[in-house]
Amino acid sequence: MAIKYELIKTCKQSGARLGRVHTPHGVIETPAFMPVGTQATVKTMSPEELKMMDAHIILSNTYHLFLRPGHELIRQAGGLHKFMNWDRPILTDSGGFQVFSLSEMRKITEEGVQFRSHLNGDKLFISPEVAMEIQNALGSDIMMAFDECPPHPAEYDYVKQSLERTTRWAERCLKAHSRPDDQALFAIVQGGMYEDLRRQSAMELTSMDFPGYAIGGLSVGEPKDIMYQVLDYTVPLLPAAKPRYLMGVGSPDALLEGSIRGIDMFDCVLPTRIARNGTTMTSQGRLVVRNAKYANDFGPLDPECSCYTCTNYSRAYIRHLIKADETFGIRLTTYHNLHFLLQLMRDVRRAIAEDRLLDFRDAFFTKYGLFDNEKGF
Amino acid sequence: MAIKYELIKTCKQSGARLGRVHTPHGVIETPAFMPVGTQATVKTMSPEELKMMDAHIILSNTYHLFLRPGHELIRQAGGLHKFMNWDRPILTDSGGFQVFSLSEMRKITEEGVQFRSHLNGDKLFISPEVAMEIQNALGSDIMMAFDECPPHPAEYDYVKQSLERTTRWAERCLKAHSRPDDQALFAIVQGGMYEDLRRQSAMELTSMDFPGYAIGGLSVGEPKDIMYQVLDYTVPLLPAAKPRYLMGVGSPDALLEGSIRGIDMFDCVLPTRIARNGTTMTSQGRLVVRNAKYANDFGPLDPECSCYTCTNYSRAYIRHLIKADETFGIRLTTYHNLHFLLQLMRDVRRAIAEDRLLDFRDAFFTKYGLFDNEKGF
Repeated sequence: MAIKYELIKTCKQSGARLGRVHTPHGVIETPAFMPVGTQATVKTMSPEELKMMDAHIILSNTYHLFLRPGHELIRQAGGLHKFMNWDRPILTDSGGFQVFSLSEMRKITEEGVQFRSHLNGDKLFISPEVAMEIQNALGSDIMMAFDECPPHPAEYDYVKQSLERTTRWAERCLKAHSRPDDQALFAIVQGGMYEDLRRQSAMELTSMDFPGYAIGGLSVGEPKDIMYQVLDYTVPLLPAAKPRYLMGVGSPDALLEGSIRGIDMFDCVLPTRIARNGTTMTSQGRLVVRNAKYANDFGPLDPECSCYTCTNYSRAYIRHLIKADETFGIRLTTYHNLHFLLQLMRDVRRAIAEDRLLDFRDAFFTKYGLFDNEKGF
Repeated sequence: MAIKYELIKTCKQSGARLGRVHTPHGVIETPAFMPVGTQATVKTMSPEELKMMDAHIILSNTYHLFLRPGHELIRQAGGLHKFMNWDRPILTDSGGFQVFSLSEMRKITEEGVQFRSHLNGDKLFISPEVAMEIQNALGSDIMMAFDECPPHPAEYDYVKQSLERTTRWAERCLKAHSRPDDQALFAIVQGGMYEDLRRQSAMELTSMDFPGYAIGGLSVGEPKDIMYQVLDYTVPLLPAAKPRYLMGVGSPDALLEGSIRGIDMFDCVLPTRIARNGTTMTSQGRLVVRNAKYANDFGPLDPECSCYTCTNYSRAYIRHLIKADETFGIRLTTYHNLHFLLQLMRDVRRAIAEDRLLDFRDAFFTKYGLFDNEKGF
């Protein structure tokens, strides 16, 4: 087995788990947030900066790397770790979600998905076997099975048909995966917002021996209380001895609610994407540093933050840089937002260790406000 | 006096000088190249990275900071050093060159220059007094007198009239400068490509007691041999006890030829600007890493370079990042180019110390080729 999950303890106040995922490139303390490095780089950040903020693992995107620069080139380079100079763990998604959300003229068959590249219109094809070939070439520590992620809302019949295909695809992935000793393959539970379908998907996938399980098809436009309901009934269906990964989730409230429900891993482009238009997560809630009211504000982005950005730079300076289209401004907001979420997860882990995660959540929400979709996250 | 120039020795092979400029924010080893941080940031770089490559001083632009965010805001922030988190020396130009090259609808009178902002069309005015007020607010270690920089080619009569006004403006700058104990004011010798006018400008300006002298109006489109001729007759007119600064020059060959002729300081946007389209300076000459031939090249940008970029990343990776519009690619080429020029100046200083700068230049040109305008620098 490429990875090993070590359960340290469960929070007495909630279903939250404190654990460690041991991988070929080091240990991930869980619950963990994974910064997203779509194109073999976490936008604007260096590997050293990611280490300075103590990111244990990053995610990179199979679909994007398949299109550009191509997985064969990365294989030649000695794998993704070497290519991008990152020696800690990497998780690659399967390309499934991106094929459905980014590509054009896609056609799904039992065999796989035919689509046109969103970059240049090239006709391409990804099947479970191709997704494994790509990810084996990339050499990520954790690979994801090729799945279909239906949009929200979707009809019951379609979701059922789709999850059953995802199960068959998962089985093919397991067979096609050529490096099980170096790379762990996670399956993705689908089933939309239907409890019985989530149960069906989880049962089918856990009957096969994957080293970890993800919950997909959430954070796709549904209200957050629906997402939490789905977690409430889906997480208990997953094996306790293996890591559980909630895909595409990264708002502070959802990281807390997911951890409380027993999720171990999260990823999201939210902190890096909002940073690029000058929006930051702070202990006082959402702060849009571009706004005119910060022009003469010489305080840090977040007075309670100890990150590189908040230690050294003012809101006025960061606003100036962003208004002047200076890259360094985006570096500073990106660094801060990623640090904010990684610090939140450190706090979550400590709260689990001390059996007070619900108290921590309540205090967080009271003090910081909800970082919900309505406020822009 | 805010600064002190210490002449360590003169090269026995050339007019080159090894020296130190002591400033309120530390020492500049000369001859020195100054990275340009136009808008209170060296594009894409952090202060820590500039220190890692051992930049002793950076330049920032009065015109740009006057327009945005405004010098009063930077004064409120505690000055430019504090605003941008850079505690080493800063030189600010006077805004003269930018007013003439960037602004619109400018009108020059004896009093100063009226112009419209290239950002928003605002009607603005800079005079020698305003240029001093701005730079005093910025708090740079070295300020530049407000000058007019005529284009090349320019008529003799115009250049003469212009340099005489520049002399009168320099005198007004000296009077208006309110912080001579904290900030050194350099005068700028003009005179175009006319030897007698350069002589006139140098004589007039050196008759006033400026702590340093710049040579302006070069690298404005004239052939390089003309520039070197102007240096040949202008540098000897400048006082040996004070630093000499050649403005706007930064190609490797011109740094060498300028040093040989006794120049102590240089600045140029060249290394940072070309980095942004994937052009790099290497020991093998100009290398455009965007080019398709580097797609599968897993070697460093420059096999003889020891910089952060060349130690950790391949041409293939950097090319991928730049093709994919990833900021980190530009960070890597920018870092390398700045390091290349700073390393060149370290080599120049050592060659002066060992009385072999002409030998060093010849070896450099033989091995590296000329980095001349024809090749894109």
